Amino acid sequence: MKLAVIPGDGIGPEVVAEGLKVLRGVVPDVETNEYDLGAARWHRTGELLPDSVLRELREHDAILLGAVGDPTVPSGILERGLLLRLRFELDHHVNLRPARLYPGVPGPLAGDKAIDLVVLREGTEGPYVGNGGILRKDTPHEIATEVSLNTYFGVERVVRDAFERAARRPRRHLTLVHKTNVLVHSGQLWSRVVEEVSMEYQDVAVAYCHMDAAMIYLVTDPGRFDVVVTDNLFGDIFTDLAAAVSGGIGLAASGNLDVSRTNPSMFEPVHGSAPDIAGTGTADPTATVLSVALLLDHLGLPEAARRVEAAVAFDLATRQSGSVGRTTAIGDRLAALASS
Amino acid sequence: MKLAVIPGDGIGPEVVAEGLKVLRGVVPDVETNEYDLGAARWHRTGELLPDSVLRELREHDAILLGAVGDPTVPSGILERGLLLRLRFELDHHVNLRPARLYPGVPGPLAGDKAIDLVVLREGTEGPYVGNGGILRKDTPHEIATEVSLNTYFGVERVVRDAFERAARRPRRHLTLVHKTNVLVHSGQLWSRVVEEVSMEYQDVAVAYCHMDAAMIYLVTDPGRFDVVVTDNLFGDIFTDLAAAVSGGIGLAASGNLDVSRTNPSMFEPVHGSAPDIAGTGTADPTATVLSVALLLDHLGLPEAARRVEAAVAFDLATRQSGSVGRTTAIGDRLAALASS
Ligand SMILES: CC(C)[C@H](C(=O)O)[C@@H](O)C(=O)O
Ligand SMILES: CC(C)[C@H](C(=O)O)[C@@H](O)C(=O)O
Repeated sequence: MKLAVIPGDGIGPEVVAEGLKVLRGVVPDVETNEYDLGAARWHRTGELLPDSVLRELREHDAILLGAVGDPTVPSGILERGLLLRLRFELDHHVNLRPARLYPGVPGPLAGDKAIDLVVLREGTEGPYVGNGGILRKDTPHEIATEVSLNTYFGVERVVRDAFERAARRPRRHLTLVHKTNVLVHSGQLWSRVVEEVSMEYQDVAVAYCHMDAAMIYLVTDPGRFDVVVTDNLFGDIFTDLAAAVSGGIGLAASGNLDVSRTNPSMFEPVHGSAPDIAGTGTADPTATVLSVALLLDHLGLPEAARRVEAAVAFDLATRQSGSVGRTTAIGDRLAALASS
Repeated sequence: MKLAVIPGDGIGPEVVAEGLKVLRGVVPDVETNEYDLGAARWHRTGELLPDSVLRELREHDAILLGAVGDPTVPSGILERGLLLRLRFELDHHVNLRPARLYPGVPGPLAGDKAIDLVVLREGTEGPYVGNGGILRKDTPHEIATEVSLNTYFGVERVVRDAFERAARRPRRHLTLVHKTNVLVHSGQLWSRVVEEVSMEYQDVAVAYCHMDAAMIYLVTDPGRFDVVVTDNLFGDIFTDLAAAVSGGIGLAASGNLDVSRTNPSMFEPVHGSAPDIAGTGTADPTATVLSVALLLDHLGLPEAARRVEAAVAFDLATRQSGSVGRTTAIGDRLAALASS
């Protein structure tokens, strides 16, 4: 396995080190190439993602990213110049984000709410394309537009992958989350594609949920969701809340997948670079380790993926309540569990 | 006071009756005109909002709406043809939605989380304008767009009203919720306007929060929000979650305000017509009564508004846990409390 590693800033390098430790425990033969991208490089050189680096990244089987950013970089620079650029250049059309409330993990919701869902957020279209403009900038007559672009091609491939995944899960249930009653143009396209593709997956039950109502259900009845498919912006919002109700973004993993396997997929914890705790050795590497499980699954090593996930589940269930422990200790424990 | 009343469908008429009961308890001199709009009328006549009705509605000081809809009306028809049409025709640019966790109300969050925030959701622009289109419909080459329109004029007036309200609240804190790191065009406009208007409100503290992060904060730290200003779509999503964490949309009130007072403002509970419990006499009219409080406040009767709100607070604090009681009994109780 040839893996590109982007440790990034803040706690990024710390959690990535543990992710690699666990990965090497289950797949001994991993060749890694490290790429220095993120806030530090931008400060030093002004570069975000040089074309030569992008070319090299393409030569790998997958990419593991820690986290990028620090408070002194103006908002949007790294997001658009690095993170989103990678997603768009590498055609990461399925942004895969599972949310599971593991036994032993304290969630913010009262009562026992079982959560085990997976979101497929479209990753290359929607309001994220950067389409739009500003007219009469900085005047009292300014007009700003944002255009959400949705194509049959783009919607179909993520919806199809969502049905594929739903068909392989025990509940075989898929929910389209959108706001079709207001966003009629894109709403019609999404609804039509879900209906069409559902014909080929007769054993998958299909539901629809408005985005606003979905927020309510995530806190009152998250168990209703199994596989969720939605657009880029709704997915961004939905997955942060889904992570919050299942123990926090400290545990949330993600995969930016090119399902066609033309380009390497990229795996990253959903959390940021957490500069406030960087260097203290207290960052929780669990989200990165769970991202490694997604990576293994994507590369056709589902058994290794299950071992990593089981290690995390065991570790979370047996952690002393309140204490997370040191970054490296968690990595050691998870690596030992996963490779045992 | 000349009030137009749109009872609507399902539990709409039931909760509106109690809202009016409470209103009449504090303002004896209310002239009401009832308008039959909603699913029932649409089924009967195919009409959604005849121009003549719209003209008559304009002749009132305010509008009180219960809820419209039933499961047999195709999604989007009433939303766009009636609810959104009213908001746009009557220039309801400030969609005011307070969220408060009243003492005695069980919320879905573990632990004691104080919630007392108010959202100003822009009501006449953004992705709600219906701008966009479909190309190559029903083919494998279909493209669908949604255009979010944001004008200085539209953003400034809701931001200004948000600062006005923040300046009158004890915490004097305002948060802009957006996704400025991705939606750069509209994001720049919103950020610029907040910055500009903030100069005139030096004693209001200003914060910014990404929409996705805001979802996390609403379940982990909702106390950080005081006044929130945001666009039409983010506001739709934010307010449903804010309602969910403060006891449910059964308690959530809203005002669709034309702050310039050129057109009558409209007040409505956030919940729907709940056909499943319609006619059982068990609908909770509290959200409608709280909407009446917003109405009183908007019409320059802040003391009457405070009395209605205090009645609700007292009632919620002293309700027997679990039992909501009958619709009419709650209305009687609230009317008696508010007028005492
Ligand atoms: C950093 C930002 C551009 C990104 C997004 O909006 O997709 C983040 O919020 C995420 O969810 O991965
Ligand atoms: C019914 C629908 C059009 C409406 C909206 O999206 O604004 C509702 O969700 C609301 O929040 O009032």
